[in-house]
Amino acid sequence: MDTVRIIGENLPNMPWQEKPEGAVGPVWRHSDNPVIHRNPVKGVARIFNSAVVPFEGEYVGIFRAESTNGRSHLHMGRSKDGLKWTIEEKQIPFVNEQGKPFQPNYAYDPRLVKVEDVYYIIWCTDFYGAAIGVARTTDFESFVRLENPFLPFNRNGVLFPRKINGNFVMLSRPSDSGHTPFGDVFLSESPDFVYWGKHRHVMSKGGQGWWQSVKIGGGPAPIETSEGWLMFYHGVTGTCNGLVYSMGAVILDKDEPSKVKYRSSTYVLTPEEWYEERGFVPNVVFPCATLTDAETGRIAIYYGAADTYVGVAYTTAQEIIDYVKATHEEVGDDAEIGIM
Amino acid sequence: MDTVRIIGENLPNMPWQEKPEGAVGPVWRHSDNPVIHRNPVKGVARIFNSAVVPFEGEYVGIFRAESTNGRSHLHMGRSKDGLKWTIEEKQIPFVNEQGKPFQPNYAYDPRLVKVEDVYYIIWCTDFYGAAIGVARTTDFESFVRLENPFLPFNRNGVLFPRKINGNFVMLSRPSDSGHTPFGDVFLSESPDFVYWGKHRHVMSKGGQGWWQSVKIGGGPAPIETSEGWLMFYHGVTGTCNGLVYSMGAVILDKDEPSKVKYRSSTYVLTPEEWYEERGFVPNVVFPCATLTDAETGRIAIYYGAADTYVGVAYTTAQEIIDYVKATHEEVGDDAEIGIM
Repeated sequence: MDTVRIIGENLPNMPWQEKPEGAVGPVWRHSDNPVIHRNPVKGVARIFNSAVVPFEGEYVGIFRAESTNGRSHLHMGRSKDGLKWTIEEKQIPFVNEQGKPFQPNYAYDPRLVKVEDVYYIIWCTDFYGAAIGVARTTDFESFVRLENPFLPFNRNGVLFPRKINGNFVMLSRPSDSGHTPFGDVFLSESPDFVYWGKHRHVMSKGGQGWWQSVKIGGGPAPIETSEGWLMFYHGVTGTCNGLVYSMGAVILDKDEPSKVKYRSSTYVLTPEEWYEERGFVPNVVFPCATLTDAETGRIAIYYGAADTYVGVAYTTAQEIIDYVKATHEEVGDDAEIGIM
Repeated sequence: MDTVRIIGENLPNMPWQEKPEGAVGPVWRHSDNPVIHRNPVKGVARIFNSAVVPFEGEYVGIFRAESTNGRSHLHMGRSKDGLKWTIEEKQIPFVNEQGKPFQPNYAYDPRLVKVEDVYYIIWCTDFYGAAIGVARTTDFESFVRLENPFLPFNRNGVLFPRKINGNFVMLSRPSDSGHTPFGDVFLSESPDFVYWGKHRHVMSKGGQGWWQSVKIGGGPAPIETSEGWLMFYHGVTGTCNGLVYSMGAVILDKDEPSKVKYRSSTYVLTPEEWYEERGFVPNVVFPCATLTDAETGRIAIYYGAADTYVGVAYTTAQEIIDYVKATHEEVGDDAEIGIM
């Protein structure tokens, strides 16, 4: 019997496939992956590392679209079933709070998170180097870009889907401006989405294994469960021919989410299929979003594959949390609560 | 006749020497430099890059004291004249807001700035890498360490001596965790000294000359003048045998201090004397504090020399501002106002 509950809405029409016979590990792939292929719309070479939410009975997504000129921007997409996507040809037109155009120079690895009645887009933007950009929308027609929450250099901003102790909470991965050869996950709070503070260290790269030895970064918005905040994240290892990105899973304390309760010592998904091994950047799985159904505990994970495709994978809250607990290891200072 | 005014208090007993005959440039050295020598107190090998303020008719300082074990911590010091200093043997004992000991693992390059009735100490601290640490005191006996204002990696936090448009304003220099081979100056605001935002880019490294080609960083707290905020800063160039740190000067807009009004295209002080050329880190002048007298426009600059000594140099508001205007150059995006 399931003892783990997702705390959230029901989503009976979300993409779903049962775990196939003989599947290895706690996460299994959609049988018809990738769900977005190369050259999905005019002028866009590849779509990957993207985020989706349910919206008005269907689905919308904010997609990392790499143009045929090699630069990344954000494009909207719509889907009835979460699997077949229609991507817009044009970049999302951001305006500032005064309504003037306020387009990022580039934008990549978006997350899309609903808090109360607002959808927040969080991405990696240019602020004299890589930094976190944020915008809000309520209708997916007008998009207001807000103040950058942090100084550069930073990537992988991930917002929690509700306020905790009255504050917005965002994870991020302070970095350098290049292909950062290090990186831990930190957490910051804000009462108003303008000013941020109470920064805490959450998770260190490393551990006994080597799959997350170079750096780690937050993934989809954490999922609230009866066991705490479940988050998928990426862990990176180095080889003689470059980096390899796998997916890990962690459970953070419900009220004090800078505290790691359980963390899987092994990856939960790693590049194995052709669309993960081959592409613009070989050997990458990079989770950015989930859909969940509270009633059944089902989870669909949207992940970028090889910086070229979008893949979907599945698990249940019960299965993944059992797995994370069973394979738990404490890494570095994970158990400490920041600076105070 | 002087047309430039310092907006601030009078300090008739501050250290002062008139400009000597034949002095080159707008800043001249104290004739009996360095004012703090090697091994100034038991257990401390070198004191440098330190900050002073007037306090109860005398002077107090927060000193970067490198222990004989090679690690940096902050020590208090006191002086009647601002030149002869008595340094305490013990580290400053920081507590958190609950009164519990809260000592940094290391601490360096302090600034010390009075805003309203509180003295704020800002330093480079360990937060899983280099970051900005802050503390407050009103009596220089108890020191309360506050929330780190920013995520790592960062250095050279410099607080403005009054709120601007109702907010605290702090400069900083986002960096990496090593001997950062890049760096511009940014600005952030806070309504409460806990949460920070509205980050803006202020100044770029670079320019026509080469003395500030590698990186720059804020120096003493900006001095309010009739022409805007006068700030001394450090600019760094690279050689085959390492970095060379010089001092520059800039005038920031009074109400919108992320906007550069004038910026000297040349250094205003560069390592030339034995105590600047020779020491633990050769060829460093690194300004961290000033004393000023509003009535006469006199400015005394405290600077670290070769990571080994404290030196004092002098100028007047009129002389340095005339110089900065006369040698002004616009560097990179200096004239732009951040992201909005």
